[in-house]
Amino acid sequence: MNIQEIYFEDYEIGHFRETFGRTITETDFVVHAGHTGDFFPHHMDKEWCKTQEFGQRVAHGTMVFAIGIGLSASEINPVAFSYGYDRLRFVKPVHIGDTIRTRLTIDRKHPDPKREGMGQVFEKVEVLNQNDETVLATEHIYLVEMRKA
Amino acid sequence: MNIQEIYFEDYEIGHFRETFGRTITETDFVVHAGHTGDFFPHHMDKEWCKTQEFGQRVAHGTMVFAIGIGLSASEINPVAFSYGYDRLRFVKPVHIGDTIRTRLTIDRKHPDPKREGMGQVFEKVEVLNQNDETVLATEHIYLVEMRKA
Amino acid sequence: MNIQEIYFEDYEIGHFRETFGRTITETDFVVHAGHTGDFFPHHMDKEWCKTQEFGQRVAHGTMVFAIGIGLSASEINPVAFSYGYDRLRFVKPVHIGDTIRTRLTIDRKHPDPKREGMGQVFEKVEVLNQNDETVLATEHIYLVEMRKA
Amino acid sequence: MNIQEIYFEDYEIGHFRETFGRTITETDFVVHAGHTGDFFPHHMDKEWCKTQEFGQRVAHGTMVFAIGIGLSASEINPVAFSYGYDRLRFVKPVHIGDTIRTRLTIDRKHPDPKREGMGQVFEKVEVLNQNDETVLATEHIYLVEMRKA
Amino acid sequence: MNIQEIYFEDYEIGHFRETFGRTITETDFVVHAGHTGDFFPHHMDKEWCKTQEFGQRVAHGTMVFAIGIGLSASEINPVAFSYGYDRLRFVKPVHIGDTIRTRLTIDRKHPDPKREGMGQVFEKVEVLNQNDETVLATEHIYLVEMRKA
Amino acid sequence: MNIQEIYFEDYEIGHFRETFGRTITETDFVVHAGHTGDFFPHHMDKEWCKTQEFGQRVAHGTMVFAIGIGLSASEINPVAFSYGYDRLRFVKPVHIGDTIRTRLTIDRKHPDPKREGMGQVFEKVEVLNQNDETVLATEHIYLVEMRKA
Repeated sequence: MNIQEIYFEDYEIGHFRETFGRTITETDFVVHAGHTGDFFPHHMDKEWCKTQEFGQRVAHGTMVFAIGIGLSASEINPVAFSYGYDRLRFVKPVHIGDTIRTRLTIDRKHPDPKREGMGQVFEKVEVLNQNDETVLATEHIYLVEMRKA
Repeated sequence: MNIQEIYFEDYEIGHFRETFGRTITETDFVVHAGHTGDFFPHHMDKEWCKTQEFGQRVAHGTMVFAIGIGLSASEINPVAFSYGYDRLRFVKPVHIGDTIRTRLTIDRKHPDPKREGMGQVFEKVEVLNQNDETVLATEHIYLVEMRKA
Repeated sequence: MNIQEIYFEDYEIGHFRETFGRTITETDFVVHAGHTGDFFPHHMDKEWCKTQEFGQRVAHGTMVFAIGIGLSASEINPVAFSYGYDRLRFVKPVHIGDTIRTRLTIDRKHPDPKREGMGQVFEKVEVLNQNDETVLATEHIYLVEMRKA
Repeated sequence: MNIQEIYFEDYEIGHFRETFGRTITETDFVVHAGHTGDFFPHHMDKEWCKTQEFGQRVAHGTMVFAIGIGLSASEINPVAFSYGYDRLRFVKPVHIGDTIRTRLTIDRKHPDPKREGMGQVFEKVEVLNQNDETVLATEHIYLVEMRKA
Repeated sequence: MNIQEIYFEDYEIGHFRETFGRTITETDFVVHAGHTGDFFPHHMDKEWCKTQEFGQRVAHGTMVFAIGIGLSASEINPVAFSYGYDRLRFVKPVHIGDTIRTRLTIDRKHPDPKREGMGQVFEKVEVLNQNDETVLATEHIYLVEMRKA
Repeated sequence: MNIQEIYFEDYEIGHFRETFGRTITETDFVVHAGHTGDFFPHHMDKEWCKTQEFGQRVAHGTMVFAIGIGLSASEINPVAFSYGYDRLRFVKPVHIGDTIRTRLTIDRKHPDPKREGMGQVFEKVEVLNQNDETVLATEHIYLVEMRKA
């Protein structure tokens, strides 16, 4: 982890980075169920899953999101604040043994209409599996300080 | 957990439910960091946090989301599918010892323009703390089957 | 989770419910050992287990009990209190990958001889595996309030 | 951990041992809820508990049992088998910060009426807190081989 | 766990003990990463590992050390204190599914040159896998009280 | 996490880096005990600890080592290999609520006498607490490739 100040003006549209991969294990399924309290059979009952569309356990959407975002937590920008996420979509299921990584691309930015001296930066987030398929997509919105004039 | 088939036509606008509460503990902070790999000092370093705006450790946004949604996982609707979330916003920080619960309200619905026989149902999700303040808000979108004509 | 008041008089002999299934994973074995401190090779050493009767790791009895009971924790009855369990028996071993569920049947009831206005309700608890074999059996005793006369 | 063969004839009535203590932490509460799926507010919601009889969170009965038994797992007797538990009773609540230990006393024994060459040994199990109050009591039944004549 | 006072004079050179085995699971890999924050792909990304020398995930060295030492934690000597470890070496990789055990041998001892009434005892620590190969070696140094003259 | 190739020749004596801090929580104590199986009362029994020298629970040495090293896992050098650690010393106890960070300094280096084209780099590792006291010290030895001539 490093600290690096990146101001609104410094964000370059199209700049992207990609994280290391992480294999999603049965352990992650069990930990996430226990962490959130969601023990739905879709995630926890391999016999029941055999009778369903995918034939096997499917990762919690909240887990793919939390781990996908967590993979990108490597640099602290003290002048940027997470405002929220838009259009979070679970594009494909993640199964036990899949390996995911996250690609983050600065998509667009504009001055914040309500907060003087701040801008909004939109980062496209794509979580990919080992076959380079997008499994989750969303847009991360940051509020970022502008350089003092 | 129960199974209950609820078709598109059955969703009533304005219907809401509220979950039990759950106290967010230091354990949850540590488990979430270990689960996601996000060990940012905002969540993990109480000394550093003393020097920051909130004066104490702040919960990961992804944790408030995952636990807030997990609290609502009590009933399975086999004819509904989670499509995604819109406008996920971290409204207020959650600290160690806060107790959160989730209020879910059916907000609006309309037939899916692309998928015949399916509708989209929009559920407003509010995670509240022990002071009835909203700490997280989002909108959950379901794809739901219509009754066979 | 719901809250529902069920008084002594309301319990119907023979009424039963069955929970969803949950696959018992290697993760559960490791978590239970770490949670309880019981690292006996019967649960943790697959090489040693190859030399023993079952040829593979066997679940802790306390885990099958705790998860089997946990599966049934879906409804709160504020006028009933858990008094204890009788005749807890480990009928068959549970191995990694088995899927268990719990069947609960109201077996009998009678007024509590010592506590005025209370009754004892006996619930038969059977934990079953994916082959519908009973792996654990016990009897759960509740103290339940009677309706005010 | 050691291995020691103790045959039916070797068990002495009245022999007892006492384990080390272990402080039951908020972490144990959270781990047990996540391990079993029982997130009842009695264990997890400190605000709700303030409105209840004990005024604070109460440990899961299954956790006090599992940890209480786990504390005693220090010696393997290869000629003894756990048959089950009788009269498991939750005598007093365990709260966050209590320190428990387990006292085990050989209470009685008799030849097994159905299994030739085997005997039943009954061990009294008491889980005590830091004030020497019994919080859980039960009786552990072992099937133990007799010495070859 | 037992307590046994063993004074400096009581340690016999060449005395050794060997622990039970423990299978190192994928769960242990995930728990250790989450516990330490080390999510290097060597331990976590099975796809990337396929392209590397060992072809599969490799255990964290700190995990083999921590679990190898933990296996030996069965007896408390109140007159001995852990001073540190010398020459900690990761001799061979440990993979998911390997079963390790620890062999501990009293190697040598001498009076502590600086602390009157104390001695230094050197215990050779070898962590072995299921093929009796040493995977980790180190030397544990204890400071031990001498008997009062 | 980044990948950066640093050859033997590139290591500068005296170069140092310092990690972010991490507060060591009661959760970490419980997780480490469960992960390693070391439930010694020094780490787990707050009542017993009140009667001992430090008056409170003391962190496992293996945990301070594993987390201290884990804090530094932020950059991958594909031409360096961890060979082991020397002179690992537990200088001061770590208690619940202490915040640790790790300072790593390149101390010295020399060509490997046995492995042609490789060198040994010695990195001084100091784990510090919130009062800037060293709680653990050791020396990490790397085998590092030399640049091709």
